[in-house]
Amino acid sequence: MQFRRMFYLSAAAVVFAAMFGAPALAASVSKATQSCLACHRSVTPGIVADWEASRHSQVTPAEGLKKPQRERRISASEVGDELSGNVIGCAECHTANADAHPDSFTHNGFKVHSVVSPQDCQVCHPVEVDQYGKNIMSHAYANLNKNPVYHNMVNMSIGTQKYSNGELSVEDPNELTESDACNYCHGTVVKFQGLEERKTAMGTMKLPKYEGWPNQGVGRINPDGTKGSCTSCHARHEFSIAVARKPYTCGECHKGPDVPAYKVYMVSKHGNIFSSQKEKWDFDAVPWVVGEDFTAPTCAECHASLVVTPGGQVLSERTHQFNDRSKWRIFGLPYAHPHPISPDTTKIKNQNGLPLPATLDGKFASEYLINEKEQEKRRQTMKKICSGCHSETWIDGHFERFDNTVRVMNDKTLTATSILLDAYDKKLAKGLADNDSLFNEAIEKKWAESWLFFGNSTRFSSAMAGADYGVFANGRWWMNKNIAEMEDYIDFLQATKDAKEGREEDEKD
Amino acid sequence: MQFRRMFYLSAAAVVFAAMFGAPALAASVSKATQSCLACHRSVTPGIVADWEASRHSQVTPAEGLKKPQRERRISASEVGDELSGNVIGCAECHTANADAHPDSFTHNGFKVHSVVSPQDCQVCHPVEVDQYGKNIMSHAYANLNKNPVYHNMVNMSIGTQKYSNGELSVEDPNELTESDACNYCHGTVVKFQGLEERKTAMGTMKLPKYEGWPNQGVGRINPDGTKGSCTSCHARHEFSIAVARKPYTCGECHKGPDVPAYKVYMVSKHGNIFSSQKEKWDFDAVPWVVGEDFTAPTCAECHASLVVTPGGQVLSERTHQFNDRSKWRIFGLPYAHPHPISPDTTKIKNQNGLPLPATLDGKFASEYLINEKEQEKRRQTMKKICSGCHSETWIDGHFERFDNTVRVMNDKTLTATSILLDAYDKKLAKGLADNDSLFNEAIEKKWAESWLFFGNSTRFSSAMAGADYGVFANGRWWMNKNIAEMEDYIDFLQATKDAKEGREEDEKD
Amino acid sequence: MQFRRMFYLSAAAVVFAAMFGAPALAASVSKATQSCLACHRSVTPGIVADWEASRHSQVTPAEGLKKPQRERRISASEVGDELSGNVIGCAECHTANADAHPDSFTHNGFKVHSVVSPQDCQVCHPVEVDQYGKNIMSHAYANLNKNPVYHNMVNMSIGTQKYSNGELSVEDPNELTESDACNYCHGTVVKFQGLEERKTAMGTMKLPKYEGWPNQGVGRINPDGTKGSCTSCHARHEFSIAVARKPYTCGECHKGPDVPAYKVYMVSKHGNIFSSQKEKWDFDAVPWVVGEDFTAPTCAECHASLVVTPGGQVLSERTHQFNDRSKWRIFGLPYAHPHPISPDTTKIKNQNGLPLPATLDGKFASEYLINEKEQEKRRQTMKKICSGCHSETWIDGHFERFDNTVRVMNDKTLTATSILLDAYDKKLAKGLADNDSLFNEAIEKKWAESWLFFGNSTRFSSAMAGADYGVFANGRWWMNKNIAEMEDYIDFLQATKDAKEGREEDEKD
Repeated sequence: MQFRRMFYLSAAAVVFAAMFGAPALAASVSKATQSCLACHRSVTPGIVADWEASRHSQVTPAEGLKKPQRERRISASEVGDELSGNVIGCAECHTANADAHPDSFTHNGFKVHSVVSPQDCQVCHPVEVDQYGKNIMSHAYANLNKNPVYHNMVNMSIGTQKYSNGELSVEDPNELTESDACNYCHGTVVKFQGLEERKTAMGTMKLPKYEGWPNQGVGRINPDGTKGSCTSCHARHEFSIAVARKPYTCGECHKGPDVPAYKVYMVSKHGNIFSSQKEKWDFDAVPWVVGEDFTAPTCAECHASLVVTPGGQVLSERTHQFNDRSKWRIFGLPYAHPHPISPDTTKIKNQNGLPLPATLDGKFASEYLINEKEQEKRRQTMKKICSGCHSETWIDGHFERFDNTVRVMNDKTLTATSILLDAYDKKLAKGLADNDSLFNEAIEKKWAESWLFFGNSTRFSSAMAGADYGVFANGRWWMNKNIAEMEDYIDFLQATKDAKEGREEDEKD
Repeated sequence: MQFRRMFYLSAAAVVFAAMFGAPALAASVSKATQSCLACHRSVTPGIVADWEASRHSQVTPAEGLKKPQRERRISASEVGDELSGNVIGCAECHTANADAHPDSFTHNGFKVHSVVSPQDCQVCHPVEVDQYGKNIMSHAYANLNKNPVYHNMVNMSIGTQKYSNGELSVEDPNELTESDACNYCHGTVVKFQGLEERKTAMGTMKLPKYEGWPNQGVGRINPDGTKGSCTSCHARHEFSIAVARKPYTCGECHKGPDVPAYKVYMVSKHGNIFSSQKEKWDFDAVPWVVGEDFTAPTCAECHASLVVTPGGQVLSERTHQFNDRSKWRIFGLPYAHPHPISPDTTKIKNQNGLPLPATLDGKFASEYLINEKEQEKRRQTMKKICSGCHSETWIDGHFERFDNTVRVMNDKTLTATSILLDAYDKKLAKGLADNDSLFNEAIEKKWAESWLFFGNSTRFSSAMAGADYGVFANGRWWMNKNIAEMEDYIDFLQATKDAKEGREEDEKD
Repeated sequence: MQFRRMFYLSAAAVVFAAMFGAPALAASVSKATQSCLACHRSVTPGIVADWEASRHSQVTPAEGLKKPQRERRISASEVGDELSGNVIGCAECHTANADAHPDSFTHNGFKVHSVVSPQDCQVCHPVEVDQYGKNIMSHAYANLNKNPVYHNMVNMSIGTQKYSNGELSVEDPNELTESDACNYCHGTVVKFQGLEERKTAMGTMKLPKYEGWPNQGVGRINPDGTKGSCTSCHARHEFSIAVARKPYTCGECHKGPDVPAYKVYMVSKHGNIFSSQKEKWDFDAVPWVVGEDFTAPTCAECHASLVVTPGGQVLSERTHQFNDRSKWRIFGLPYAHPHPISPDTTKIKNQNGLPLPATLDGKFASEYLINEKEQEKRRQTMKKICSGCHSETWIDGHFERFDNTVRVMNDKTLTATSILLDAYDKKLAKGLADNDSLFNEAIEKKWAESWLFFGNSTRFSSAMAGADYGVFANGRWWMNKNIAEMEDYIDFLQATKDAKEGREEDEKD
């Protein structure tokens, strides 16, 4: 019973026909894609239906290229003849660049690869792929796993502790755990492991086997060596711009206590208006017209979208770099700092030689970070977006507070760090100087939460006006409580050490 | 001002009339129900309006039985003549099986009972009631309250501590607290306490009084002795299948840190697509067609619904047992384990004689749990649902990770448990061997959180691809931090014990 | 591409024209507002579009006054001639009461003020402004900042700790932090600081500068001395009643662990039905008809709205006082207590002379709190709203549980407080008797969380049937765990103190 849909369609058809004449002819589907559909319409019908609802199934590149520049979703200036006349179906992506994909295999006469990569999307969307390559997210795998400090944090966070003789040791996580945990968002290394025979609904077939699969992490290392997965945000197989523009997509990875952007947004005035009014908005419109298509920003509006005024003035050009509208990098590290110049952060060295953008006492590794001019440029880019609805007085007041919060929370992190360093000095914990992890002892984990949870939450709250996420919901209350507990904690560790030494002396006597 | 609704209705009527001729005649309402409506339309208008929006008010059992098998919502093969010709109104449920309900009372000439039970719903929906009887949820009251270990956990969790001479003791919770806390979801025992006179808008009336009321818990013990409450998920009085199919219904009870299924789902790719696209879906369609009626699963799709492909192939038969598509029971207990064979888990005894499905060091009470064959069967049932959209390679990769997570988190729980057992050995805490609760001391509560919060959260995250709920949002980070703190905690307890003994010796001297 | 909208509009126009004749003529916009729009349509197009979607832009006060009483949104019985004939545009609010606004400045020939205050809204909405003045929220700034106990809590919660020689001290927060944190919701003091030259898109202009701006807190102190900001809930510039009626608005401030009303609501049966069915509801209807316009309550329905039955019976009169339907004040303080009589709570003194509605051991400062008669009156007001859908038996059972929870959670708070007081007695912490803060030490922060987080969460859960928020999601489990940890904590503090004293003695020897 799909009465509503039937009614819409039938009524729409009548209105359409009356207004514009007969509807457009059926789109042109390539023979190769028709061949895929012949089986997959019954084998995996859900994704075929998704694709049928997509623009990919309805508009050919040639038609896309005829649109005015600002309305185009296609960023290539031309697309080869063999591709441009048909809609983009299964075969157009899953057989593209066949020779470059080590996982290509023969499937019903076609050379097919399962893992579609940015290299394939690039045929029609080169500008986006290029920008995304400058996006720190595209390097999320190595930035986490090839940085010794972070990688040690990963191992201590998700590895398995063993308890023996009153002492804990930590085993490294296995590959499946890594893929299931941090790399779920950061991206796995997808390794093609050859073909294996499988019984399928269509008979026995040789099909590819992968390590690190499935995965849609933002920094996924694809079998063809490319980085990233466009489907992180453009969910298969509708690849809908509307889905990417809604905050739920960003919320998949940006919701936890380490990066509560989604939660903060949802309690902000902007998020309130989104939740309340979104059914009236047009999330598919390109360009995106403030006041007309939407009346409050989503994540995408501020950080990615091409936004124009009803009069056609551009408030922001589309970007897939994302951080080029942001002055500060506010999460993931002890101290908020200007954004790194290169998306590959493994190159960074601080003044103590550690691969971190600041020293443990908060001095920036400035040569690896954007300079003041670039910071200011990014700030101005963001402010122009705000100006779609807000006066300059309002906008300046907002950012003055945000910059203050960045400074103050860095100060608080320094206080937490001082206590940890004092614990090291007093031999109540073991740190880098002792060739020990920064992240394995309870006091170290408390320290990490001070910036990873409470600093981050407060900064996000300040950046997006998220109220309680800067106070009682993992904000300043927690930061201050954590610091007060850290102070007591080293007293407890000291008392414990004294007691142990006392017992040992008693035993000697 | 209900312009939108008016427009839909008027436009729809025009289209309908043009397409199908005149709309159907008004449904047939029994005289008894008409009598109820005469007053209740003004006394409790909200629920009357709900009912008017329901299928119950629009389709008679006789009409329902004429539908093709797969489209039926009614599972009885026949319904008695006295019922089948009228729509299902107030009287049809609230006077059904009158003699079986101890709380039946005479109300305006009818023998009415307030608490409608599965026995009443069974008249038209016997298959669902039968399946639900095999659902562990139907036994949720006794499974919690008649299992001595769990019941003690309840008392320590919600009872009231008193502090005296530096020591805590715990008073058992009163009945109102029990009903307000655990039993809100698990179900209360609804006890009929006779009639009492009340002044109402319609004059003085004798009306029933109950203990444990109101309640809509899944394992509610009804006055007629039956278990469960269909309105847990099918909210009164629209009893909408659409409401039950949306994750908000499951989220009523499955959202807290002990069972964060809803939260995990909402940050998954599936949840993202649901949040973004749900307005386009048809949540009322029976059977539920993947790709056509919905394009990503909800809780119900995977665990309950009859799902078919657009071509009519059945991916899953409807079930109200829920766990018959799941291999592992992943929450509520220290160790994830194969599902219990019987929904009555009070019968289970582990190798140490405790009523738990595993020993404290993780050995399964296998004779009470489904065997490997049944585990594999349930896994295959679930995988078939995934196959509506995903390839086998994808599905197998997903479940390989999930099984790994189950193993690894059980290992971590064992580490946490080792520390607790060490605390018992060192006389730093009192456990079962000391005839003391497992759940009253702080170190025990920390231990409980390791599996109840962090183990559960990580498992749900792995089962449904919920990213941060397996790491920083109550996931592995918390598990490992908790274990590191437990290690320090017993050192602190030891130092405290030493200090106390030192003081006592000093006093002796 | 706004196909859907186009279709609706064109189809609607046809139906409308056929049913009601030609649509109404364009509304009358004052010349002053036209002048504003001339520039602002391009300078801040988002808010102009918002306004165009508002009732303010479509209905003149004169037209509003012609509506039947119950359907009016305007509460003035008359509006001056100069205002009543035009719709309410930019100028109508931003030039109102010009002389009373110290921040009025000359802008393109008009005397304009940026910060519109309740005094301005009062011209058409005097009843709401008057009621809001009795709302404790309108005093939220002073109630927090002018009460020495609370203000100290603010400083300890958001100030910056410094660590030196093993000791922590706390610096007061700066003004920007205060505005960004507690005062974001409570309201800032908006101070006009004169005009400054700014380069704008329209050339160089003299524009106002403010401290404490932007802010939309409920107790904002406006430059004209008035309290509150109507835009806290009625978001600019659509000022939509629909937005205010949805729980997202309340959730902006009432979502954190200190006041989880929104979260509790969303997991309640009511919240489930809202989430599932809201697209079918009419959030704009005045009066709001239960069963017809909505089928489950939102925050507004229970605490603010004018609600009637389909038959026209009034279930609740509109209120902007909000607490006049509530017997208990259940959050923000150690003990739940009857609502304060005056919205200015700085006047309250408990039996120990502290500005709190109860003593630290829970005795009410009854002379400052509503009496039993008023409590009962408020309870009855609320119950009448419930009666739109529920029987008296149901309603009474619900509130019996809630009252029990209030009592029991106060008992638990007393237990937590006893431990803290014991710590003071044993010189393990410093409190008011030592001229020290109640909120700076870790043990004090733990105590504060017992009522501020766990007591509050449990009470909200009980009040609105929010299940796990009364148990594992910051409920009773946390309360009891926190108390068990507090008991151990003072043991640890004692052991630490002993160890320190031991070391000091050793040093003396």
